[in-house]
Amino acid sequence: MAIRYGVIGTGALGGFYGGMLVRAGQEVHFLFRSDYEHVRENGLQVDSVLGDFHLPKVKAYSDVAQMPVCDVILVCMKTTGNHLLPGMIRPLLHSKTVIILIQNGLGLEKDLADQLPGVSIAGGLAFICSNKVSAGHIHHLDYGKLTIGSYNVSDVNILKTVVADFQAARVPAELSENLQFSRWQKLVWNIPFNGMTVVMNTTTDRLMANEHTRQLAKEMMLEVIHGANQCGYALSESFALKMIDMTLQMTPYAPSMKLDYDYHRPMEIEYIYSKPVQNAGAAGFVMHKVAMLEKQLQFIQANQ
Amino acid sequence: MAIRYGVIGTGALGGFYGGMLVRAGQEVHFLFRSDYEHVRENGLQVDSVLGDFHLPKVKAYSDVAQMPVCDVILVCMKTTGNHLLPGMIRPLLHSKTVIILIQNGLGLEKDLADQLPGVSIAGGLAFICSNKVSAGHIHHLDYGKLTIGSYNVSDVNILKTVVADFQAARVPAELSENLQFSRWQKLVWNIPFNGMTVVMNTTTDRLMANEHTRQLAKEMMLEVIHGANQCGYALSESFALKMIDMTLQMTPYAPSMKLDYDYHRPMEIEYIYSKPVQNAGAAGFVMHKVAMLEKQLQFIQANQ
Repeated sequence: MAIRYGVIGTGALGGFYGGMLVRAGQEVHFLFRSDYEHVRENGLQVDSVLGDFHLPKVKAYSDVAQMPVCDVILVCMKTTGNHLLPGMIRPLLHSKTVIILIQNGLGLEKDLADQLPGVSIAGGLAFICSNKVSAGHIHHLDYGKLTIGSYNVSDVNILKTVVADFQAARVPAELSENLQFSRWQKLVWNIPFNGMTVVMNTTTDRLMANEHTRQLAKEMMLEVIHGANQCGYALSESFALKMIDMTLQMTPYAPSMKLDYDYHRPMEIEYIYSKPVQNAGAAGFVMHKVAMLEKQLQFIQANQ
Repeated sequence: MAIRYGVIGTGALGGFYGGMLVRAGQEVHFLFRSDYEHVRENGLQVDSVLGDFHLPKVKAYSDVAQMPVCDVILVCMKTTGNHLLPGMIRPLLHSKTVIILIQNGLGLEKDLADQLPGVSIAGGLAFICSNKVSAGHIHHLDYGKLTIGSYNVSDVNILKTVVADFQAARVPAELSENLQFSRWQKLVWNIPFNGMTVVMNTTTDRLMANEHTRQLAKEMMLEVIHGANQCGYALSESFALKMIDMTLQMTPYAPSMKLDYDYHRPMEIEYIYSKPVQNAGAAGFVMHKVAMLEKQLQFIQANQ
């Protein structure tokens, strides 16, 4: 079965993942905002560690009303725009459409499911370093694995097909048996390093080079793990050590939230911080440090 | 009994409190660092809400070896220099000298007592807005109350005389029955606002205007109160609300640590943050948020 894909938010993630699918022969319809004119005239350029490629003709749109209904919708925009999602997605739905939210954080699927009752929703986690360097021009620097998991998809065969399509397109992809577990697991790294690089106005390597912030990052990781445990997801404490070791070996890195801050864009505070704090709190565990970081980020966002 | 006073660290605090004593007729010997030449030639100028005054001739020194032994030594320098204190103080001691550490934080007296065994030590808490605006020129903006308490002073009569001397010099002064209680109580305000104005690079009014940081300040105050409780000091939770109300009514204010940060001076992290965290921890209470703020400040200090 050939899947007709739609990509909502064609930036660093959507441009790369959608572009890889197109290159592998899949039918992909891309929604653009400001880059629409440029891509219509010049196509999409992907410079990737897997090999550069240019797609001279892509199915580009600036208005969802012009797009066809899709079997699978890859949502690749920042969660700060998620309040707009239902309106953007409704015109693309048929009775069996599956929406995959390739976004960071916790609780995104629930919010969308509340707004679009009866619609099949999945989540996707991108382990990738990728930036949009200019209009229609993506720079894929490293990694790229995509983990997909069902939120309320009744027939997971379509997700298996999506995973197979990505694998055929040379994107490492896998199906998660437990989407919420995977989301919490990704937060173990995202929570300390996204927020701390913003509040300390620095990069991951400097946080790791200082004994105090290295210790703080580890403590915050353990807090997230304990929060996940309390919510019923059996993440192990040893995962924190693994993430610390990985970060020590990384090249200096500014996570996506730090880039948002630097470019004066809204930060993804709600789904990366507020929802995890709320969920852990509802389960009876106070994530003191994560909650404090959330409040510091809210202050910075309000005063930027 | 007339007391011979020595002032170590003649800046915003030492210049004001020592100057007020001199004006009231007390004998005060002042140790200066960089301002010595200026004060020897021009005297000390205090612009105060209590009335401006000029002291053309002050007993100024640049070297403790030149100073006489003193009955009471008022230590008014930043705690970041406390490792130098024993060497500075020893030449000024006679058998009954009392040292009063008019400094912020917790555990200062114990550290000095360990280094100067057998010497009488007290603590002082200054509730004052005062700045040094140039060499030998102090600007006293508001408040000024001095709370003095014994750490290991066997005969508290001398402290009573000191309090009376200050009162006679129009400085509101009182004796604390419980120095450690008073130090914890002052930390309830100092801990959230000194560090948070640095980490968020802002002033008290902006922290209070944002619902997230206002809430965080309150939570941190309660953490300090619970830390004090666990250490045996019966501070009440209602004191946090009182401090929040007071801060809401204050004019925009940059606490001393924020000024230290702005002027690239070392910050008083050890006695305002590390010691309270250690003391509460040793008593079995983890001050999560205070500990996090301490680590953030350590990072900022190391990377400034």
